[in-house]
Amino acid sequence: MTEAEARLIDEAGRKFGPKVVITDPSEIEPWVSDWRGRVHGVTPAMLAPASTGEVVEIIRLASEHRVPLVPQGGNTGMAAGATPPGDGSAILLSMRRMNRVRSISVENRLAVAEAGVILTTLHDAAHQNGMRFPLTLGARGSCTIGGLTSTNAGGTQVLKFGTMRSLIAGLEAVLADGSVHNGLSGLKKDNRGYSLDQLLIGAEGTLGVVTAVALRLVPAIAARAVAWTGVDSPAKALELLRFLDARTASIEGFELVPQDSLDLVLKHIPNTRAPLSGEHKWHALIEATTADPEANIAAELETLLAAAMQQGIMGDAVLAANEAQAEAFWKLRDSISEAERAEGQTLAHDISVAVADMPEFILEAAAAVEAAFPGVVASGFGHLGDGNIHFHVRAGRHAAPDWYEAEGEKITRMVDDLVTAAGGSISAEHGIGQLKRAEFARLAPPGRIEALRAIKQALDPLGIMNPGKLIP
Amino acid sequence: MTEAEARLIDEAGRKFGPKVVITDPSEIEPWVSDWRGRVHGVTPAMLAPASTGEVVEIIRLASEHRVPLVPQGGNTGMAAGATPPGDGSAILLSMRRMNRVRSISVENRLAVAEAGVILTTLHDAAHQNGMRFPLTLGARGSCTIGGLTSTNAGGTQVLKFGTMRSLIAGLEAVLADGSVHNGLSGLKKDNRGYSLDQLLIGAEGTLGVVTAVALRLVPAIAARAVAWTGVDSPAKALELLRFLDARTASIEGFELVPQDSLDLVLKHIPNTRAPLSGEHKWHALIEATTADPEANIAAELETLLAAAMQQGIMGDAVLAANEAQAEAFWKLRDSISEAERAEGQTLAHDISVAVADMPEFILEAAAAVEAAFPGVVASGFGHLGDGNIHFHVRAGRHAAPDWYEAEGEKITRMVDDLVTAAGGSISAEHGIGQLKRAEFARLAPPGRIEALRAIKQALDPLGIMNPGKLIP
Repeated sequence: MTEAEARLIDEAGRKFGPKVVITDPSEIEPWVSDWRGRVHGVTPAMLAPASTGEVVEIIRLASEHRVPLVPQGGNTGMAAGATPPGDGSAILLSMRRMNRVRSISVENRLAVAEAGVILTTLHDAAHQNGMRFPLTLGARGSCTIGGLTSTNAGGTQVLKFGTMRSLIAGLEAVLADGSVHNGLSGLKKDNRGYSLDQLLIGAEGTLGVVTAVALRLVPAIAARAVAWTGVDSPAKALELLRFLDARTASIEGFELVPQDSLDLVLKHIPNTRAPLSGEHKWHALIEATTADPEANIAAELETLLAAAMQQGIMGDAVLAANEAQAEAFWKLRDSISEAERAEGQTLAHDISVAVADMPEFILEAAAAVEAAFPGVVASGFGHLGDGNIHFHVRAGRHAAPDWYEAEGEKITRMVDDLVTAAGGSISAEHGIGQLKRAEFARLAPPGRIEALRAIKQALDPLGIMNPGKLIP
Repeated sequence: MTEAEARLIDEAGRKFGPKVVITDPSEIEPWVSDWRGRVHGVTPAMLAPASTGEVVEIIRLASEHRVPLVPQGGNTGMAAGATPPGDGSAILLSMRRMNRVRSISVENRLAVAEAGVILTTLHDAAHQNGMRFPLTLGARGSCTIGGLTSTNAGGTQVLKFGTMRSLIAGLEAVLADGSVHNGLSGLKKDNRGYSLDQLLIGAEGTLGVVTAVALRLVPAIAARAVAWTGVDSPAKALELLRFLDARTASIEGFELVPQDSLDLVLKHIPNTRAPLSGEHKWHALIEATTADPEANIAAELETLLAAAMQQGIMGDAVLAANEAQAEAFWKLRDSISEAERAEGQTLAHDISVAVADMPEFILEAAAAVEAAFPGVVASGFGHLGDGNIHFHVRAGRHAAPDWYEAEGEKITRMVDDLVTAAGGSISAEHGIGQLKRAEFARLAPPGRIEALRAIKQALDPLGIMNPGKLIP
């Protein structure tokens, strides 16, 4: 603990008491490593404010004592952006006690949720009002609105509703100078200069601390239909999506799954079975929804899929007969990463290219990586309709136990080079955090890092907001 | 002309020739005043690059010689943001020669248009491909994509499609250091740090020069239905909009018109007639569209309006029988400002509050202004569903010829105070430019101006990008 940290902790302790200022190592321990256990941080204290006013005071103290803060929500990030540095030089700022849904307006289709509200809590609150917050992802039971905002999170409903950026009507944040930016008014039109809301979305806590967010709601779902389809190639899968999108506005999930991934799930995950009897190289999981209680969404999807099959776009399809089967289909998709881990060492890459380019990219990148690193298995799965797939590379059967350490960086560099050559992004939805900083520095377009550094320096001249994250 | 300007003009002239470097005062003259004739600027030259590369070289020259540039598109702005300063200390940078639609992809639903492309040119190009760019406004025959982007323009289709911010998939810009930010790849997901795209949208050319924009397209309209309705109050108008929105996704225009404004149009604009025979205090112009050639949009709208009438939401309604009548209805709405000018002196305010608050705000603000300034007529019309109206105050019948100069500032301050007290914005869709800087400075929330200044200083340390605009 530095002297400055000791002074800050002492002063904060006298001001706020032990609910806000936590120094017991056993209480801090669960929050100093990222959830995948890759990065381990150290901090002398965790501050847990319960109001925007307390955040303001904490930031003023941090500024006064020149002690950096690391804001953290549910600690479910994929890039270790909420993990404190390993040298103990920063204090954790847990936002989890700011957990009120401040308001829900059905009339304005807006909810205002504090940064520490857990995603499922917001889902439930919206549902109780006949509405829905249309973003979801695997960590929904732990991740928070503040973290989702600060990483511009995506998920499986981006196809229809966009990432967090599309769903945020405005936000409240405390800037590094202690001033409160209040963008919660929910104005649909406001052209008073640069958008601080937009600047803070995806800034990973490096420019200020998001304390509350005004979020767009949509009418609750009346019914959904879920189908599993077999296709010959990623190109056919995209053709199927275009075919459906041209005929209905109801498609909100469209996930690509290669046969190889499905095989691993069937092998390692209990109580799973293949939805289709025949063999297919690729699969697409499709979800259609409607807010209209009188619509027959299952019949609509069935008719469209039959037409697509007749035109040869698709090999076979099966509609989930009930909710249990729909859940079973989604479980196949959601278990891919777990099944891969059970099979052996895996390298994950969250990448994007232009939607139309993705089918070719998946095949060519996989072939190139497999040729360059004999024995590995490379494949892409996920959000084809967003041009975003999780490109995973698995160690071969006879790989050494240290394959990940020995080969990981080389393989990742090759994948990132291929993505960059295709005009894509090495971070589609996970952010930069700590884990992608080196690659971002290596591959960023000219001028970009300088521009980000200048903005960071302008809004956080003392460097107290989440140092060592995002900007190389 | 300063010595630095003379050196820049000389160097640029030798490099690019007279097509790019225009010094003939008669050629410059039409572009140095804002189109409403309120602000008159002076400049020794107008530079007109035809490529991003030329913009880079011009910005490098401006940087080297410390000569500020004033970017300009169609010069149709409402806040004099593209008008050079009156002391001749800056050079005009006309973007109109960068006028290519670089690409249109029906598959990706994207168009890439250079900054100088005129809005109707883009409309036509999209239409030729069976697509549509869903933003329009009165100045569509002159305004440019770069100007629309830099002011985050709105218009009459925001209700369904949002402002420019919602329609921009990415943009290309030259920053003040001469580096090119290329966000044109059209990636749907990209989380590599702060969004420069978002920062440049609405920045009014103060952080860099937008050179090209990737824009979202939607399927072309197959048919539209336009209705004119009479309602008792703005609250009833909003209730009508909510009633329709709960039952159809096809409403894309909903404009509020007070009887007073309609009367002025009928009095001053030739070939206009009232759509409804009865008397109504307020009117709503409604446009519903469909991209489905088989849908009967007119029948759908008629059924919904009949139901709304039966429920007492609305007094009367008439559906345009044909395209000519639909155009005639829109002409009534679009002629309000012209009719007001014909009637006498008018003060315009482009303001927004939360959508649900607008009905009450219109009535209360009008009553307050009329009470404080006896003789004036205050009323709001326009984009009720966006919480954005044009709040206009007309001089009374016996007002002095200098009413505008004598009373204008006082009245505007009162309107802006009312808007601010209601949590609204003094610039909903027109930006700050030169004309709203003083009011922005007076009413900006604490810390906001400092944050904007810090960002400006960070990205334009030499102050060469549109000085004297936006930031007080």
